Amino acid sequence: MKKVLILLGCPESPSQTPLALYTAHKLTKMGYDVTVASTPSASKLLEVSDPEEFYVSKKVDLEKCLEDLEEKEYDILIGFVHKDAAVSYFVTFYHILDTRSFAIVFEKDADLLGKFLDDLKENTDATLISARAYHNPTPLRVKIDRAFKELED
Amino acid sequence: MKKVLILLGCPESPSQTPLALYTAHKLTKMGYDVTVASTPSASKLLEVSDPEEFYVSKKVDLEKCLEDLEEKEYDILIGFVHKDAAVSYFVTFYHILDTRSFAIVFEKDADLLGKFLDDLKENTDATLISARAYHNPTPLRVKIDRAFKELED
Repeated sequence: MKKVLILLGCPESPSQTPLALYTAHKLTKMGYDVTVASTPSASKLLEVSDPEEFYVSKKVDLEKCLEDLEEKEYDILIGFVHKDAAVSYFVTFYHILDTRSFAIVFEKDADLLGKFLDDLKENTDATLISARAYHNPTPLRVKIDRAFKELED
Repeated sequence: MKKVLILLGCPESPSQTPLALYTAHKLTKMGYDVTVASTPSASKLLEVSDPEEFYVSKKVDLEKCLEDLEEKEYDILIGFVHKDAAVSYFVTFYHILDTRSFAIVFEKDADLLGKFLDDLKENTDATLISARAYHNPTPLRVKIDRAFKELED
């Protein structure tokens, strides 16, 4: 069973936790073994959203995960990015894992969104999925569905 | 089976959708028949968070629900309040339903939080559950658990 690691940083946006649940569930249904690595606040929101662990059962602390991380430990890396810190985390995980990677980038402000995308393009060859999203998750959900089509086989 | 109506307004805060899922699930497990009435954006976030409707199966549009609402149609009203518009909706539903009511009030800004609480106290006799919460859902979760103890019998 192929392993996916999803990264969740500080949950400033109302869309992040819903989209993380959606993505984890989608990949689980597609047959992947999904782990979510998150900051303490992102982790609390996941726990409150999904008290029976119906959508996300494997959760680890982001810092702890990074400490022990080894090359190719996961087959796919997916990072939610809507802050500078999240860009840095994603780039770090990307270079350690050295595997197929997707960054889901969202931000209300067009300039900030552009900056995050430029930083990711400069530092990784990850597939970038992005939208000027804040509390409407639909544009990103549609793009996630499209991008993950290639993972279906 | 007693009926609960949960109101969800515009989802500016990252905590609202997670806490709404938590509350709906908690009351369902306690044996209540739970319906969530929400604005279109709040509804999309619920759908993305809970794609299999494991936590919330009954969803209605807030405006549509209000149009058809009758006194005592629900046994318990629970409103999530973190904007002026949400205060107005809650007060309106409260007076039409005329039933046992709880307002879950959350806002980062202490002055705004105080204003929402003052408005609710002035216009309703609802039980108020409040915290200066934004992306940490724990203080509100703990207070929700405590307040709902009385609904357990």
